[in-house]
Amino acid sequence: MSLADTHGITVAFNQAKKSYNEGGIPIGSSLFNSRTGAQLGAGHNERVQKASPTLHAEIAALENTGRLRAAVYRECTLVRELDSYTSNSPCSMCTGAVLLYGIPRVVIGENSNFKGEEDLLRSRGVEVVVLDNPECTELMARFIKEKPELWNEDIGET
Amino acid sequence: MSLADTHGITVAFNQAKKSYNEGGIPIGSSLFNSRTGAQLGAGHNERVQKASPTLHAEIAALENTGRLRAAVYRECTLVRELDSYTSNSPCSMCTGAVLLYGIPRVVIGENSNFKGEEDLLRSRGVEVVVLDNPECTELMARFIKEKPELWNEDIGET
Repeated sequence: MSLADTHGITVAFNQAKKSYNEGGIPIGSSLFNSRTGAQLGAGHNERVQKASPTLHAEIAALENTGRLRAAVYRECTLVRELDSYTSNSPCSMCTGAVLLYGIPRVVIGENSNFKGEEDLLRSRGVEVVVLDNPECTELMARFIKEKPELWNEDIGET
Repeated sequence: MSLADTHGITVAFNQAKKSYNEGGIPIGSSLFNSRTGAQLGAGHNERVQKASPTLHAEIAALENTGRLRAAVYRECTLVRELDSYTSNSPCSMCTGAVLLYGIPRVVIGENSNFKGEEDLLRSRGVEVVVLDNPECTELMARFIKEKPELWNEDIGET
């Protein structure tokens, strides 16, 4: 794990904690330039805060970053501090956004319970790096225990 | 083509024309209950209007519809009045949103030039219906001729 990835996870995790403290779903994401390490944007799930069914953390990070040229996306790393955890409904929408913009590298904080659409990303040539971050796991486990109905709505289960 | 699909395409096409008249990208979408024919929502590409890189037409339609239970999505048809036309960068993000929410049926107005992620949708059990709507084709062809740089940005090409 590089220093840049550690920083990316920290930014994403802080987004997740912010969302948790607002009563929202605690998943965060950040977008970095892989070459320079510059942060381009960050965001968190906005289902509760904006009543949004589409602003998952990665989509929110891309939205908050704003419009970029294709060449910029192609130098990026998108960080998600947690993968689909306990879910068998992987985030195909966020996977699709990565493929749409040709983002070549995705860093995932934790995937001990489910590996989501990682195979689809890899089959399209995206580098997927999985870290093992216990803080990410703990926050999400706490949230799912507290508000299972919200989590199931977010992954299209109920 | 059912009457409901004809209506869905009309709603989506009107969204596309609205966006074109606002100086935006003319792609529209609508969401219908497949069983009752009730319209649940609609939207258009918001790249220009909201400086948004993620509000493609389908994402905008889902966002404008708001939060729904999983059981409702599973009775839906998502209509896109145009497929990826002249592009070899299919809308994988919107495909992913369909898979995330388990939307079982997608109606596409036109796909004469490229068939996008239709294979991925079908491989996951989604019914894909392709119509052949010359109005959709004509509007998009006009737009791409007028503003190629905007179109290429939207599909992550430049």
